[in-house]
Amino acid sequence: MSRNEWGNRARMLIACPDQPGIVAAVSRFLHEHGANIVQSDQYTMDPEGGMFFIRIEFDLNELEKRLESLEIDFAQVVAAKFQMEWSVSRASQVKRLAVMVSKEDHCMRELLWQWQAGDLNAEIAMVISNHQDMRPLVESFGIPFHYVPVTADTKQEAEHQHMELIKDKADVIVLARYMQIISPQFITHFANRIINIHHSFLPAFVGGKPYAQAYNRGVKIIGATAHYVTEELDGGPIIEQDVQRVSHRDNVNDLKRIGRHIERIVLARAVAWHAEDRILVHHNKTVVFN
Amino acid sequence: MSRNEWGNRARMLIACPDQPGIVAAVSRFLHEHGANIVQSDQYTMDPEGGMFFIRIEFDLNELEKRLESLEIDFAQVVAAKFQMEWSVSRASQVKRLAVMVSKEDHCMRELLWQWQAGDLNAEIAMVISNHQDMRPLVESFGIPFHYVPVTADTKQEAEHQHMELIKDKADVIVLARYMQIISPQFITHFANRIINIHHSFLPAFVGGKPYAQAYNRGVKIIGATAHYVTEELDGGPIIEQDVQRVSHRDNVNDLKRIGRHIERIVLARAVAWHAEDRILVHHNKTVVFN
Amino acid sequence: MSRNEWGNRARMLIACPDQPGIVAAVSRFLHEHGANIVQSDQYTMDPEGGMFFIRIEFDLNELEKRLESLEIDFAQVVAAKFQMEWSVSRASQVKRLAVMVSKEDHCMRELLWQWQAGDLNAEIAMVISNHQDMRPLVESFGIPFHYVPVTADTKQEAEHQHMELIKDKADVIVLARYMQIISPQFITHFANRIINIHHSFLPAFVGGKPYAQAYNRGVKIIGATAHYVTEELDGGPIIEQDVQRVSHRDNVNDLKRIGRHIERIVLARAVAWHAEDRILVHHNKTVVFN
Amino acid sequence: MSRNEWGNRARMLIACPDQPGIVAAVSRFLHEHGANIVQSDQYTMDPEGGMFFIRIEFDLNELEKRLESLEIDFAQVVAAKFQMEWSVSRASQVKRLAVMVSKEDHCMRELLWQWQAGDLNAEIAMVISNHQDMRPLVESFGIPFHYVPVTADTKQEAEHQHMELIKDKADVIVLARYMQIISPQFITHFANRIINIHHSFLPAFVGGKPYAQAYNRGVKIIGATAHYVTEELDGGPIIEQDVQRVSHRDNVNDLKRIGRHIERIVLARAVAWHAEDRILVHHNKTVVFN
Repeated sequence: MSRNEWGNRARMLIACPDQPGIVAAVSRFLHEHGANIVQSDQYTMDPEGGMFFIRIEFDLNELEKRLESLEIDFAQVVAAKFQMEWSVSRASQVKRLAVMVSKEDHCMRELLWQWQAGDLNAEIAMVISNHQDMRPLVESFGIPFHYVPVTADTKQEAEHQHMELIKDKADVIVLARYMQIISPQFITHFANRIINIHHSFLPAFVGGKPYAQAYNRGVKIIGATAHYVTEELDGGPIIEQDVQRVSHRDNVNDLKRIGRHIERIVLARAVAWHAEDRILVHHNKTVVFN
Repeated sequence: MSRNEWGNRARMLIACPDQPGIVAAVSRFLHEHGANIVQSDQYTMDPEGGMFFIRIEFDLNELEKRLESLEIDFAQVVAAKFQMEWSVSRASQVKRLAVMVSKEDHCMRELLWQWQAGDLNAEIAMVISNHQDMRPLVESFGIPFHYVPVTADTKQEAEHQHMELIKDKADVIVLARYMQIISPQFITHFANRIINIHHSFLPAFVGGKPYAQAYNRGVKIIGATAHYVTEELDGGPIIEQDVQRVSHRDNVNDLKRIGRHIERIVLARAVAWHAEDRILVHHNKTVVFN
Repeated sequence: MSRNEWGNRARMLIACPDQPGIVAAVSRFLHEHGANIVQSDQYTMDPEGGMFFIRIEFDLNELEKRLESLEIDFAQVVAAKFQMEWSVSRASQVKRLAVMVSKEDHCMRELLWQWQAGDLNAEIAMVISNHQDMRPLVESFGIPFHYVPVTADTKQEAEHQHMELIKDKADVIVLARYMQIISPQFITHFANRIINIHHSFLPAFVGGKPYAQAYNRGVKIIGATAHYVTEELDGGPIIEQDVQRVSHRDNVNDLKRIGRHIERIVLARAVAWHAEDRILVHHNKTVVFN
Repeated sequence: MSRNEWGNRARMLIACPDQPGIVAAVSRFLHEHGANIVQSDQYTMDPEGGMFFIRIEFDLNELEKRLESLEIDFAQVVAAKFQMEWSVSRASQVKRLAVMVSKEDHCMRELLWQWQAGDLNAEIAMVISNHQDMRPLVESFGIPFHYVPVTADTKQEAEHQHMELIKDKADVIVLARYMQIISPQFITHFANRIINIHHSFLPAFVGGKPYAQAYNRGVKIIGATAHYVTEELDGGPIIEQDVQRVSHRDNVNDLKRIGRHIERIVLARAVAWHAEDRILVHHNKTVVFN
């Protein structure tokens, strides 16, 4: 479907304690308000006493004009009754990404390429880097590039600058092999909106030099993990993982080379799913409706 | 969930032309009849003018007593309005399999093993074979074994015997490497209820000796395909496929050995999904809600 | 190739510091002794200053009669010069397995099944269990079953019994989900000859209840690991790993069910490779010529 | 290993009828000529009466100066005796690629990207296209771009132009989704040196619109195939294949999007293996020492 056909498409994400009648109430509400459900995915943790999650895509004529009143009605008629945490977003309002990168460029390139190929339903609003290396490439795509050097002394100031750059201009922060530590304040501010790629199959090889760790342990498969960033290092909710077989013949450099391909694919998938409102976070785990 | 907890669990499969309000109508109907939706998967081929498919698992108190009247109501209140093809089955009424097998035993063993491990929500009602080889194994599981030899002359008679054995005793026929041709009448009689495993990644290598064909073509990956049997040889709706990497080092016997592992896993998955009413057939293709 | 054609087939494993001329010396030696190399795999850790590993399969007429003198010559002419650690085994002398098992039967079943199908070039010499459950199954294959109960008080005595049973009767010990701790003495005695299956993608989820750990961490892929047992818990040289994709929909029981299929395949592969002398251990890592 | 360390590295590919003593003769020859084997892979189709294939990487001091006489000696001393087809190439002489492309850019981009990342041991000598679209991208990498339009009337002339462009300037032709038919003369001229990517899991879906074919057949896995081009359409020796799981939810456009990722990875692998002299062709099949 082309983007202009999305004008009347909305996506609704709901999480609430499970109980009878939720689907009936929501679908009846939408039907009575003239919305047509085009896709719906749900998941119940446990039929009795667990949580219920649902993602609904619906079309509504004159969405832009009518969405606000639909939201007000929904809050009163349905959401309150079922203690729902919920949100609605318009498919035509694509998420804006702030991509942060250091020297390794493969993850950023993949995002640029998928975006250019029309495979990434998001806008790359800016790239922020602590190095100048990527400037020519990024600017050749017509994307603003911000160089914010980071040293031990300027950490706080640099992060302040990040905040200023991102504020009102980006909805999601993508750490595309950005090798600097992010402060707890920053993480809290953008809770569940910072996506990182870790170059190992988490929880194996947390921390630095995961490919060297993997080589030393002699694993036969390596992987990469995209996750939301939380205060615990490499401990946030996992969005996506993938792996590839390796052998004793592969040295650390081979693992890095093979791993680069896994990293870029895994990060791009995670970003795409986030951009299409396919992810719900619950208790440090994700529900991904893909 | 243990099987006795399934007493009140039912599964509903619906296919109909897509139009607004289907989910609302179905979920409202179920809610008003006291049913609680515990899982729901849907798929719309195309928002405008395509087909709509849904699979709903619901719990209903005193299901056995109340299901019939619920079905009568549903036919009148909902199904007619939306031109639905639909069915409801009770989770506690496990499907009964008639497994047909020749000399290769790996697929049948896998089904026996998964059944014994409690991973296959089905009952193996009988095994039918044109050879005596499997009798001891099958009977050691307490499962009836029927030897029906087949020659060029006795084909029709043999199939008549199959019919008699299966009639009222089995719901699904599983061709677990059964190497005899099935007649069009038999296929029509059990439409979308005969599952075959073909030892190639269809549509590559239709027909006989697919591993020899694969070896001669020099493919780098081999596979297996579970499909519903139709009159067209190896041409029926594909339920599941899987593959494994091979190399120039693998000769035909290696391909057979590697392939056996793919075949048994693929067939077991297809049978399990059928047994749990997860498959809808539409125009020689399957919708699998797994 | 059928087993009787293996009468004159031998397998040579060599590890030594790398230096020029190793392959030339070994292949010349074999050629001059009338042996024909039918397969050869080698691996050099690093061209300068690393280790060199090679596995050679060769055919030699009247192998049984001539192997001993060939070994004596090889030790003097080649091995000493290159400081080789080496061994030769006859393909016709299949390795004898002692399979140890507790209550979970899937790994043992897979070994039995592959053995029966002729896919496992090994003999299952005995099954030892701390439970009686598997006796009928094992004995139905004509394989000796030894029940050795283990309690906190009888641990040492039980292991003494294991030793007595295995001594001179088995070459490899396969822990096919054997849930008791093995003593350091036992491990040392059978160094690099005890193969364990751990039900996680090591080094993730070391220790108990790995599927519960995986569920709690919210991983999107689960795995299993076959490794040689060393004193460090789940820390020995990894032989083989495999994985399968899971989702938020899979609860701990689903992970166990899915994992069972990975475990049995991974363990069977590791055992087959060990049985065919395809594995060299070096510094807590394996070189697998498969 | 960095490229300048490759100065003395050579790669030898040999195919010949199997017989005793080949490895001994070759490795002895190399050792006596001062060459050190750093990697060796071999494959025997069948111990008796089949073909033998070997790939050897060796280091030789002052390679450039001494290679020619080594080749002359080898031809006389070893190759003639064993009826070898053989070749030696210097690792430092990287293969030069002529990449041909039409409008789909993902495969060409991947090659450019891997080349830039240093993962592709080859030089992209030129890009030839029947469209102007890729000129800016290609030239931004400093690579010559040749626009050669092709119509029904100018086919022959266009191919003549291709020949002129490629002659003496490229060793390998990579059809990176080049959508024009190549003439038999062209194919014969560059036998086993034209690599094509076909967007299906061959031999399934030969010919045009393979994703539409795959969608209509309802397969559950799609793939891509890199192969050497022969006169038979999509029938040449397969170098590499890979696959990815799809579902009923994926329409033709989804298959194309998913397939693009498989295509680019598969083609890049095949080109890398060819560039590193890892592929031998025998009877429309490949032996890949990777």
